[in-house]
Amino acid sequence: MLNLSPSGLPSTFYRPSLALLTDLYELTMAYGYWKSDTANREAVFHLIFRRHPFRGGFTVACGLAYVVHWLSHLRFDPDDIAYLGSLTGADGEPLFEPGFLTDLQRFEFQCDVDAIAEGTVVFPQEPLVRVRGPIWQAQLVESALLNIVNFQTLIATKAARVCLAAGGEPVLEFGLRRAQGIDGALAAARAAYVGGCEATSNVLAGRWFGIPVRGTHAHSWVMSFGSELESFQAYARAMPNNCVFLVDTYDTLKGVRHAVEVGRWLRSQGHKLLGVRLDSGDLAYLSIEARKILDEAGFADTFIVASSDLDERLITSLKGQQATIGVWGVGTHLVTAFDEPALGGVYKLSAIREASGQWRRCVKLSEQAAKSSTPGILQVRRYQINAGCLGDMIYDVEIGCGDPSSPLIVDPHDDTRRKRIAPDARHDELLVPIFRQGRLVYDQPDLAAVRERTLRQLECFSASIKRLDNPHEYPAGLEPRLHDLRKRLILEAKGF
Amino acid sequence: MLNLSPSGLPSTFYRPSLALLTDLYELTMAYGYWKSDTANREAVFHLIFRRHPFRGGFTVACGLAYVVHWLSHLRFDPDDIAYLGSLTGADGEPLFEPGFLTDLQRFEFQCDVDAIAEGTVVFPQEPLVRVRGPIWQAQLVESALLNIVNFQTLIATKAARVCLAAGGEPVLEFGLRRAQGIDGALAAARAAYVGGCEATSNVLAGRWFGIPVRGTHAHSWVMSFGSELESFQAYARAMPNNCVFLVDTYDTLKGVRHAVEVGRWLRSQGHKLLGVRLDSGDLAYLSIEARKILDEAGFADTFIVASSDLDERLITSLKGQQATIGVWGVGTHLVTAFDEPALGGVYKLSAIREASGQWRRCVKLSEQAAKSSTPGILQVRRYQINAGCLGDMIYDVEIGCGDPSSPLIVDPHDDTRRKRIAPDARHDELLVPIFRQGRLVYDQPDLAAVRERTLRQLECFSASIKRLDNPHEYPAGLEPRLHDLRKRLILEAKGF
Repeated sequence: MLNLSPSGLPSTFYRPSLALLTDLYELTMAYGYWKSDTANREAVFHLIFRRHPFRGGFTVACGLAYVVHWLSHLRFDPDDIAYLGSLTGADGEPLFEPGFLTDLQRFEFQCDVDAIAEGTVVFPQEPLVRVRGPIWQAQLVESALLNIVNFQTLIATKAARVCLAAGGEPVLEFGLRRAQGIDGALAAARAAYVGGCEATSNVLAGRWFGIPVRGTHAHSWVMSFGSELESFQAYARAMPNNCVFLVDTYDTLKGVRHAVEVGRWLRSQGHKLLGVRLDSGDLAYLSIEARKILDEAGFADTFIVASSDLDERLITSLKGQQATIGVWGVGTHLVTAFDEPALGGVYKLSAIREASGQWRRCVKLSEQAAKSSTPGILQVRRYQINAGCLGDMIYDVEIGCGDPSSPLIVDPHDDTRRKRIAPDARHDELLVPIFRQGRLVYDQPDLAAVRERTLRQLECFSASIKRLDNPHEYPAGLEPRLHDLRKRLILEAKGF
Repeated sequence: MLNLSPSGLPSTFYRPSLALLTDLYELTMAYGYWKSDTANREAVFHLIFRRHPFRGGFTVACGLAYVVHWLSHLRFDPDDIAYLGSLTGADGEPLFEPGFLTDLQRFEFQCDVDAIAEGTVVFPQEPLVRVRGPIWQAQLVESALLNIVNFQTLIATKAARVCLAAGGEPVLEFGLRRAQGIDGALAAARAAYVGGCEATSNVLAGRWFGIPVRGTHAHSWVMSFGSELESFQAYARAMPNNCVFLVDTYDTLKGVRHAVEVGRWLRSQGHKLLGVRLDSGDLAYLSIEARKILDEAGFADTFIVASSDLDERLITSLKGQQATIGVWGVGTHLVTAFDEPALGGVYKLSAIREASGQWRRCVKLSEQAAKSSTPGILQVRRYQINAGCLGDMIYDVEIGCGDPSSPLIVDPHDDTRRKRIAPDARHDELLVPIFRQGRLVYDQPDLAAVRERTLRQLECFSASIKRLDNPHEYPAGLEPRLHDLRKRLILEAKGF
């Protein structure tokens, strides 16, 4: 078998180099710092998101393994350098001096990176990734980190919602054909698995990431034979250990009866009719009728799998209608996060080392205070009693957590909303070291362990934050001195 | 520079092989055909979509270069084969026999592929791609073709809408950070350019596809300096030929005044203040005020670029408010097609060669007749007088086009809606040969030529199909005998 990195991605995925997977402004800023002799000033950036997607109450962090892989392979190859050397400005002169390009070709990543493990339930304003190091490098990685983390976190969250709606019944990811590009499909399959899906139809995702794969046949298989029955028979002869028949090519309930007929033959050969699949029509009605046909024929353990633009809301509705669907095939709406296809994660500078050696903490203003950034060098502490999470405190590692006997959390959107944590709560620090001075120090879990983490994490939060509509807002906020610092810096920047 | 294939993609993009970028059911069906000794029956499939995205009146075909690249590199490497050999069915036994895997490892693509050129304006029910060849092969390529063509067509169409709304003013694609995965960003940058965008922020897309790249600096650049003015000065010294200042870090109109101040210095050095960028706030108001400041200071040719979750509707609204924005930076909403993030393209079997040597044409039924597929071996003929398109006729190449002196088109959704084409109209056949027996016969245009094609094509259609809301429905329908055949086959399949 292929020798895979822990992320599952073959190292050849990055030949040629993907260092240029970046917005041009990261490189023009790097050049600006280089020209200003400030390239090596130490800076701290955080990747945060501002609100949960899908009007939900939780988000599942995902994408770190891709980030690790991308950072580990971050080199500018000679073709990259030649391309950058060919870029010109408004006057037709080169954008970049040769000296800068030479330094770029010698690039070695030197930053410290801390991040929240994949499969962790996270909340707005919490840094998912913290990058600390020479400003030109810490800035340079912005676009790729956002691309990877925004998308995979979005899809892992969507998958978790779909799986919660399915109430423990298996969810299969079927989205390759409608996904946004090649990696849009692969990364979505990965993130969907992290979010709780049981398998994917995407064979390459199966091979690269070790996700179980599923699939049997399409309508075209049925159409290529003289009759539906004949097509099921041919399939059963060819692959008797993988029989889930798609029954809606012509007439769904007739299709179920044909499946039963072939199911009897399969039994006579020592095999099983695993399932029938509904891909169109009134899934509630058809599943109930199909279940009757199967049960009456003695196929009570043959499952019904349904697919057809499903998402968490349709699954909930079908369950409310007593649909007898046991396996859910979810494609387009899962892999594109159809109702909200982007997570608005941002990457903000929050501290920079002055020439004096002191940190200067900084904020990016916004029209609304809630959208202004949080200054500092941040960590997230999660308080827990037994298996229940109580609240998360975002704090500055140099300012500290305040009185440990009575931790207090302040809502950054409304500082009259506060939560005091019980003194007997234990806590975990969510950000863990990933790179130290550019060297990978993180022992990456395999993908099945990441998926398990998601499932275990979700159990630690009350049902009220996991419901689809009007979820409860989990207490995640700032340590009081950090809150005061943020407020002061916002007012200062506004000239008050 | 890197030796690129015509698609722009380096051939190393496909090391390791992406042959497994497929749904498992394509492989189980291939196996089924192989086991049934029907693998080499000749079959015809079409890739079609059923309705325009975004409630629009047109769609721009895109993705063919990726398809060509993927098909040209379609090989199963030993690791792929080993992985497939490891897959098991419900009984724990292998899914695939070794003999099949041996044949798969010898795979050489043998199909004929015809397709509509990228940058062509297309309509529902028109085949964008036709694949004809041994059924197991023509089936096998389904998932990858749908993945590629669905996404790139969606984004090229979105881009065309955004560019139409911008009314000829440059549109820049800024979506990398919110795109759906790595290729979600790269393929979107490519498709956005095909749809009419002028440049991208994505440097790798610039390098691979030859798209112009743009970018200057972020808020973090401003925050890393003691003051905004100082940050603009430092940038201008570093890169005087690429000065577009982001002015909204603290106070937008103060920012414009700082830009003007540095603009004067740039002039004194023989350079130009190219533009200022607004990234938040009330873009209509701020652009009008910024324009006044710039004009009064003698910077009438400094443009204002705006970005901030823009799409075609917001651009239209801003223009209606007399916003003085001259360049539009469009990100998230473009690259994810935010309001409708998937095109529902499908790939349907439409004819299969019987043992007798005759074609059997087939349809896939659906609840609504409109969603049933079209049988046959299809071509699309576009009728035109001068530079104006009159209508498109979908016809079966073996049935023909009917009376050439008086072509008639029937709406497949409503066969009382018909259009007779003027006898003096000239016509083009939209599907052109791409592969013949697996050999590439298509001379691919470069990407700039594809973009030109889109712009020229859009000029051939009336404004009524290009408006954002309630567009006119362009006449695209079936040749009458094909329409009758389709209807007869649908009724037959329903048992009438």
